[in-house]
Amino acid sequence: MEWTYSQPVKLIFGTGKVESLDKIFAGFGLKNGLLVSDPVFVKNGLASKVSDYSRGALIEVFSDITPNPTVTNVDDCARLIREKNIEFVAALGGGSSLDCAKAACSVCRTPYSVVEFHSGKRKFEKDFIPLIAIPTTSGTGSEVTPVAVLSDPERGVKAPLVSDNFFPMCAIIDAALTLTVPSAITASTGMDVLSHALEGFWSKNHQPICDAMALHSARLVFEYLLPAYLDAGNLEAREKMSEASVMAGLAFGLPKTAGSHACSFPLTSVYHIPHGEACAFTLDAFTRINAEAENGRLHGFARMLGFTDAYGMADSILEMKRAMNMKITLADAGIPEEKLEELARLSQHPNMLNNPVAMDLESILKMYRSLKEKSR
Amino acid sequence: MEWTYSQPVKLIFGTGKVESLDKIFAGFGLKNGLLVSDPVFVKNGLASKVSDYSRGALIEVFSDITPNPTVTNVDDCARLIREKNIEFVAALGGGSSLDCAKAACSVCRTPYSVVEFHSGKRKFEKDFIPLIAIPTTSGTGSEVTPVAVLSDPERGVKAPLVSDNFFPMCAIIDAALTLTVPSAITASTGMDVLSHALEGFWSKNHQPICDAMALHSARLVFEYLLPAYLDAGNLEAREKMSEASVMAGLAFGLPKTAGSHACSFPLTSVYHIPHGEACAFTLDAFTRINAEAENGRLHGFARMLGFTDAYGMADSILEMKRAMNMKITLADAGIPEEKLEELARLSQHPNMLNNPVAMDLESILKMYRSLKEKSR
Ligand SMILES: NC(=O)c1ccc[n+]([C@@H]2O[C@H](COP(=O)([O-])OP(=O)(O)OC[C@H]3O[C@@H](n4cnc5c(N)ncnc54)[C@H](O)[C@@H]3O)[C@@H](O)[C@H]2O)c1
Ligand SMILES: NC(=O)c1ccc[n+]([C@@H]2O[C@H](COP(=O)([O-])OP(=O)(O)OC[C@H]3O[C@@H](n4cnc5c(N)ncnc54)[C@H](O)[C@@H]3O)[C@@H](O)[C@H]2O)c1
Ligand SMILES: [Zn+2]
Ligand SMILES: [Zn+2]
Repeated sequence: MEWTYSQPVKLIFGTGKVESLDKIFAGFGLKNGLLVSDPVFVKNGLASKVSDYSRGALIEVFSDITPNPTVTNVDDCARLIREKNIEFVAALGGGSSLDCAKAACSVCRTPYSVVEFHSGKRKFEKDFIPLIAIPTTSGTGSEVTPVAVLSDPERGVKAPLVSDNFFPMCAIIDAALTLTVPSAITASTGMDVLSHALEGFWSKNHQPICDAMALHSARLVFEYLLPAYLDAGNLEAREKMSEASVMAGLAFGLPKTAGSHACSFPLTSVYHIPHGEACAFTLDAFTRINAEAENGRLHGFARMLGFTDAYGMADSILEMKRAMNMKITLADAGIPEEKLEELARLSQHPNMLNNPVAMDLESILKMYRSLKEKSR
Repeated sequence: MEWTYSQPVKLIFGTGKVESLDKIFAGFGLKNGLLVSDPVFVKNGLASKVSDYSRGALIEVFSDITPNPTVTNVDDCARLIREKNIEFVAALGGGSSLDCAKAACSVCRTPYSVVEFHSGKRKFEKDFIPLIAIPTTSGTGSEVTPVAVLSDPERGVKAPLVSDNFFPMCAIIDAALTLTVPSAITASTGMDVLSHALEGFWSKNHQPICDAMALHSARLVFEYLLPAYLDAGNLEAREKMSEASVMAGLAFGLPKTAGSHACSFPLTSVYHIPHGEACAFTLDAFTRINAEAENGRLHGFARMLGFTDAYGMADSILEMKRAMNMKITLADAGIPEEKLEELARLSQHPNMLNNPVAMDLESILKMYRSLKEKSR
C-alpha cells in the first residue's frame, strides 16, 4: 500500500473561539482584512459582531454571495480585494461563502476572471492572499479542502475548481455559530458530512489516516445528527457535528468522494435538491452496492460502529433520512421515470470512477430504479 | 471541548519508496545533503545504497550515534554540517538517529553546543536546515514529532528537547527498511507504538483527531505486532506496523504521553531497559488504572477494538508481553524491593501529570508493587 499525506491547515476548534478573532489574526500578523460573509449574517448582525471581534483587522465586508456561488460572485469579490488593497480574507458562512472566498483569494492576484480558471483555460500560479475560514454549517468541510465548487450559469455548469492555493491558512471551528442553522439545513449538511466520511473511506484512493478520520466522523454523525436536528439549540450535539464535519473534510480531502457525490451534481443542478440531501439520496444505496468491495472492508467499518454489518449501516442511514423528512424515493424528488436515463448519464461525473465497485450506465440506472419505492 | 491541530510534516508511505529518494529530494529542491545514519547501516551497506538512490544529493555520511543519543553525538553532527556547508539532512535509523539529526539541524545554525538548549539556558530561533526523516524501526514516531530525546552523561540526564524547528519537512516511511530489525527490538519498538497510541488517547490533553489516530494504530498493533515478531520477514505485518507507528506518532504528538512513558525514563536510565519495553512494563497496569477515567472512555475505545472492555484490553497487553518474552515482574527487570521508593520518585516525570488519574508517590508505588508477581 502506498499513500502520501499533508495537511497544511491549522485548526482551531472551540465554542466561542470567534470572539478571540483579534488574537488569532494578530498571531498570524494579519491586518487590512475583508470579511466575506453569507448575506444571512449581515441581516442578523453576526457579520458586524465578527468585525468587532477583529478589533480593526477586518476593514470591509463582502456578502454578495448566492447558495451554490457563481463565477460572478467570485469576480465581484476579487475586484473588491484589488480595489481596497485587502491583505487577507476571513470567510464566514457555509460552503458557499467559503468556496467563493477561496477562489477570490487567488483570482485577485491575477488580471483575469475566475472563468478562465474554472473553464480549464488557465492554471493558478502559487500566488494568493491568506484565508481564514470560519464555517457556520457542519457540512462541507470546505475549511480543510483545496476545493471550491462554483457555478457558471452562462456555461450551464456547477463544478469544482481545485488548487493547493485554496487551503486556508487556518480554520476556526466554533460550534456556537451553527446554533442558528434551520433544521432542514442541519439535516442536509449533516448528511453531507456522513457522505464525506463514507465516501472518503470507500473511495478507491482510500488511505489509513483518512480512514481513521472517516470512522470517527461517521460515529459522531450516527450519534449526534438526529439530536441536533430535533433540538437546534443542543450545543453538545452541535459541537459533535462540528467535530464530525471538519474530520470528514480531512477524511475525503485526499481520497475524494465517489458515487453519491457524483450523483449529487445533477440532483442539485437539475432537480434543485440541496447538496447534502442530494448526496444522502443515494448514500444508503451505495452503502449496499459497496458492502462487499475490497474484501468487505466496509463491514469491518460498520461493525466498529456497532452495526451488524454494512447492510445494517445502510438501514440506519435510510432510517435517519426518514426521521429527518428527507427525500427517499424518485417520486419524493420529483424525478419522472422517463428522465432516469438522462439522470444516470449526468451522474457519470469523474468522482464515480472513485467508487470501489465499477458503475456503468446500466448499474447507475439500476441503482436509481431501486429508489422507486420505499424499500424495507 | 477546545483543541487545535497542525501537522506540518509531509508523509510519503510505501514499500520501496527509499529507492526514489532522488525524485523526492528533487521535488523539494534539495541538494548538498548529509546522510545521518545508524552505524548498523554503514556496516550492512544500506547507507551506501541510500546514498546511491539519492544520485548525488547526499554528499556526506555521519554515523557516530549511540542508542539513546548523546549531546556529543549532536554536537559532532552539527560541526560536520557547518564544516561541509551541508544544506539538508536525511536521517536513516530508529529514534536515536532521527533525534540526533533533528537537534543537529538547528544546532548547526548556532555557534553553541546543544547542551545550551538541552539544559534550558537558551531557546532556538526559527532557523534550521531541512530534515527528511527515514525511520527504520516501527516505534518512536519521531518522524512526525517536534521532540528529540537526548542524553547528557555529564549532567546525568536523558530528557526530551522540544522545538517546532524539529518537525521534519518530510517523512519517508518504507516498511522494507524494517525487515532487518531483530525480534527483541521488534517487540520493544512495537510496544512503544502501542504506548504512544494508548497514552495519546488517555492523556489529559486528548483531542479527537489524535483519538482517531490512536484507535487505528492500536488496532493494527494488536493484530500485526505478534506476526512481525514471530516472522521478521512478514512484509505485510511490517507494513502494518509501519502504518501503526507513524499514526501513533500523530496520536501522541499533541496530547503527549502519560504514566507509562513517565515511568519508562528511570526504567531505561537506571535499569537499562530499552525504551519500548520500559513503556510496556507498566502499560497494562496503567490501562487498568485509567479504565474508568473520564466516564470510562477507555472502555469505549477497547470495545471498538473488539475487547470486552479496558480490562480485557489490559489482559491482552500482558499476554502480548508474555508471548514476546518481555519483562513482566520486578524480578524480571532486576528491580529490588528496597529500590522501589526511589524508582517511584524518579517516575514523577512531568508526563505523569498527563495521566487521567492523578498519580501521587503512593499510587505510583502501589502500581509498581502490583508488578511483584505475574498476576492473572
Ligand atoms: N469546497 C468543498 O470542499 C465542498 C464540499 C462539499 C460541498 N461544497 C459546496 O458547498 C456548498 C454548500 O455549502 P453548505 O452546505 O454549507 O450550504 P450553504 O453555504 O449554501 O448555506 C446553505 C444555507 O444555509 C444558510 N446558513 C449557513 N449558515 C447558517 C447559520 N449558521 N445560521 C443560519 N443560516 C445559515 C445560508 O444562508 C444558506 O441559505 C455547495 O455549493 C456545495 O457544492 C463544497
Ligand atoms: N522523538 C520522539 O518523539 C521519541 C519518542 C519516543 C522515543 N524516542 C527515543 O528514541 C530512541 C529509541 O528509538 P528506537 O526505539 O527507534 O531505537 P534505536 O534508534 O535506538 O535503535 C535500536 C537498535 O536497533 C537497531 N536498528 C534500528 N533499525 C534497524 C534495522 N532496520 N535493522 C537492524 N537494526 C536496526 C539500532 O542499530 C539500535 O541498535 C530512544 O532514545 C527514545 O527515548 C524519541
Ligand atoms: Zn459534499
Ligand atoms: Zn516512546
